[in-house]
Amino acid sequence: MEQRVSLITLGVTDVGRATRFYEAMGWKMDGGVDNEQDHVAFFQAPGMIVALWGRDKLAEDSAVEDAGGWGGITLAYNVRSPAEVDAVLEEARAAGGTIGRPGAETFWGGYSGLFIDPDGHPWEVAHNPGWTVHEDGRTTLSRADGPEGG
Amino acid sequence: MEQRVSLITLGVTDVGRATRFYEAMGWKMDGGVDNEQDHVAFFQAPGMIVALWGRDKLAEDSAVEDAGGWGGITLAYNVRSPAEVDAVLEEARAAGGTIGRPGAETFWGGYSGLFIDPDGHPWEVAHNPGWTVHEDGRTTLSRADGPEGG
Repeated sequence: MEQRVSLITLGVTDVGRATRFYEAMGWKMDGGVDNEQDHVAFFQAPGMIVALWGRDKLAEDSAVEDAGGWGGITLAYNVRSPAEVDAVLEEARAAGGTIGRPGAETFWGGYSGLFIDPDGHPWEVAHNPGWTVHEDGRTTLSRADGPEGG
Repeated sequence: MEQRVSLITLGVTDVGRATRFYEAMGWKMDGGVDNEQDHVAFFQAPGMIVALWGRDKLAEDSAVEDAGGWGGITLAYNVRSPAEVDAVLEEARAAGGTIGRPGAETFWGGYSGLFIDPDGHPWEVAHNPGWTVHEDGRTTLSRADGPEGG
C-alpha cells in the first residue's frame, strides 16, 4: 500500500444541505451524482478528493454499525497565519457551523481553533509554524525555509 | 477556505500498535512525538499528512463527545487495477486488519473491497476506471486519457 489517501467521504444527513455549507465556505463541486438512485458530491483537493454522501449509505458501504456521533477521525485545515485561523472560524460560523473552540495558542507552539460542520464533523483550523502550506495548497511536514527544505 | 485538507488524524487506542499496522502496510513514519507527555505519528502523503494519535486526546482536542464506534467518515485508497484491490486487501488481512467486504464489482462500474484497521477505521480499496491515480500518488476525478485531461 502506497502512503496516500485518495478519498475522504463525509457521511451526511442531506447531501444538498452539506454541499451548500461547503460551498458557503468557498468550495466548488467538481462532480457528483444527483438522481433518484443516489446523491453524492465530489470536491477535488490537492492530491485527493472529498465526497459528501448519505451517512446511512456510507455506513452500509463501509461494513460498519453506525451508532451516531463522532468516530475517532478529525480533519485539519492548515493556514499560513494565526489571523487566517480566526478568519476561517468566522467564515464557518457564518456558514452555519459550530465553533468547537475559538482560536488560541497551542501547547505545540502554533495557533488553532476548531469548527464542527452541520453534520457533526470537526475540522481543526491551524497555523503550525513548523509545517508548510504551499502555494498550490499542499501541506508538508517541514518548514519551507528550514534546512530540510519545503 | 481553500478547497483542501491538510491533515487527517485517526484516533487510536495505542499509537505504537497502530503505527506498526500502517508500517506493515508499507508506510514509513515521517515524524512524530514520543515522550512522557504525548505520542503521535505523522505520515506524509501527497498533498497532505496522516496522523495517529490517542483517540481520547483527539476527542478532547476536537471538542466532541466520544461514544465509541464509527462516526460517519470513511477513507478510500484508489489503485490502478482490480487485481491491486485484492492484493491490498490481502496485505491488510496479513497485517492484522479485518476484511469488511471482499473485492467485487461495484454498481458504479468499478471494483472495490474494504478493510477495517485495528482501531475500527474503515478503508475502501477501489479501482475506479473514471478516476486517475497518478504516478506520484495523487488521485484526480478525471480519466487521464479522457478528453478532459488528467
